[in-house]
Amino acid sequence: MPELAYVNGSFMPIEEAVVPIEDRGYLFGDAVYEGIASYNGKLFYLEAHLDRLENSMKALDFPPMSRDRIRSAIVDLFERAGIARAFIYLQITRGVAPRNHAFSDPMTPQFIMTVRAVREVPQELRQTGASAITIQDYRWGRCDIKTVQLLPNTMAKQKAVAAGAYDAIFVAGDGVVREATSSNLFVVANGKLVTHPLNYHILPGITRLVIIDICRELDLPVEERFYTTDELFASAEAFLSGTTTEVLPLVKIDDQMIGDGNIGPVSKRLLETLRSRGCQQEA
Amino acid sequence: MPELAYVNGSFMPIEEAVVPIEDRGYLFGDAVYEGIASYNGKLFYLEAHLDRLENSMKALDFPPMSRDRIRSAIVDLFERAGIARAFIYLQITRGVAPRNHAFSDPMTPQFIMTVRAVREVPQELRQTGASAITIQDYRWGRCDIKTVQLLPNTMAKQKAVAAGAYDAIFVAGDGVVREATSSNLFVVANGKLVTHPLNYHILPGITRLVIIDICRELDLPVEERFYTTDELFASAEAFLSGTTTEVLPLVKIDDQMIGDGNIGPVSKRLLETLRSRGCQQEA
Repeated sequence: MPELAYVNGSFMPIEEAVVPIEDRGYLFGDAVYEGIASYNGKLFYLEAHLDRLENSMKALDFPPMSRDRIRSAIVDLFERAGIARAFIYLQITRGVAPRNHAFSDPMTPQFIMTVRAVREVPQELRQTGASAITIQDYRWGRCDIKTVQLLPNTMAKQKAVAAGAYDAIFVAGDGVVREATSSNLFVVANGKLVTHPLNYHILPGITRLVIIDICRELDLPVEERFYTTDELFASAEAFLSGTTTEVLPLVKIDDQMIGDGNIGPVSKRLLETLRSRGCQQEA
Repeated sequence: MPELAYVNGSFMPIEEAVVPIEDRGYLFGDAVYEGIASYNGKLFYLEAHLDRLENSMKALDFPPMSRDRIRSAIVDLFERAGIARAFIYLQITRGVAPRNHAFSDPMTPQFIMTVRAVREVPQELRQTGASAITIQDYRWGRCDIKTVQLLPNTMAKQKAVAAGAYDAIFVAGDGVVREATSSNLFVVANGKLVTHPLNYHILPGITRLVIIDICRELDLPVEERFYTTDELFASAEAFLSGTTTEVLPLVKIDDQMIGDGNIGPVSKRLLETLRSRGCQQEA
């Protein structure tokens, strides 16, 4: 079960994989990415990830790349690694050229990937729930595009870790709750789920979509609307959603207990249903 | 006069210079940079660039690096290239590690540079002045740190080029004029210069500082304060300031003429004085 890298059509050990220093991904953060997980040897919602990747590339006026080529490279890497519960990280940059903000000249997008076993959320947090801090959202205005403009996300995550918490939640100036550093956020109140609507300020998470779909199936009402920290702190349950985060309950935020401080029944049921979808999918 | 690259202590042709795909500069835009120019074989305001670089690294909690080591690497690269009017691009990233937003483990910063002849502003624009478009500032909240979170800057520059303009000017939601995509902005009105004050929303440009210093010498009053697009459009002169931009007059913004549409006397005098400082500096 080897960890592997892929660079523009070639496979190699991760530590041997390199890119030119004048890759625009390196110089400008001019790159988009995806993270795709597998359950039991099957990639989860691959086509939804490819849809989002295409949207990201379009939003940034990247030259188009063949979806079939991208898909077959992903599947090839995944099969070579043979890791049943794998995480594939994929990044496409605009190209390589002497540093110049403008990108008028035709460029060839650069395509790299790594595959490893999923770095699972620690078992202890799965049993007790996790804690988070809130932080003012100071990211750029297009967080809906899945780019590597992630420095504020890394700084916020580090701040959370330094404070003994699992993650940080971005909150807008007006108190509207956006999302966490690498996952979306849901709250449960009065038997309903509430999550931030899709706009420029949050990532259109695949797991967010899957959860909304599961809720439809389970007859759990979901409201996609703005909500503030007041609602967050008053909620019965809150949880993060993401590709490797899956459904992770938050039981404490900024030293305030959420609900009774234990993992709630809705979060528990959604995690189970999500995982069973992962394990029962067709090859 | 060869173009050259530097990677962690080694010198090589630029096209051979590579970095690992798991460099955090590549994965997260977790990197700071500087651009340093020379006049007549002498680096201009090197110590000011080193000061700012140190500030950037501190602001992001990078492990400290020896200023002497950085300075001597810059000088070494510059001397090997032997380009009298050179531009040195320098980038330091937090380090290389398997992708993880948090950066708790000690990491070794990665240090890369390139040296080339300065890509000068086209002569035609030096003679006629340049044009710009305005664009809403949608960058992140820490533009004072010189990081590679530059995707919005590149998109804005490209939008300007596509519109037949030289550059784009970021304007906040309240109409306050920030700066351009890779330079600061000054306006001249009623015999005074006005420029945005240093805060989180603009880069503390070295050339901006030098110009303010020159103005003091020339008894030209400078106000560092907020100003809006109304003042910009009503100004007698407007110009960009930057390391390779030097002083570049803007004679048209969003199809509105600035002043009488010609290069103004203040801009002209400041460019001449800036260049003579560059050429007259001590080795």
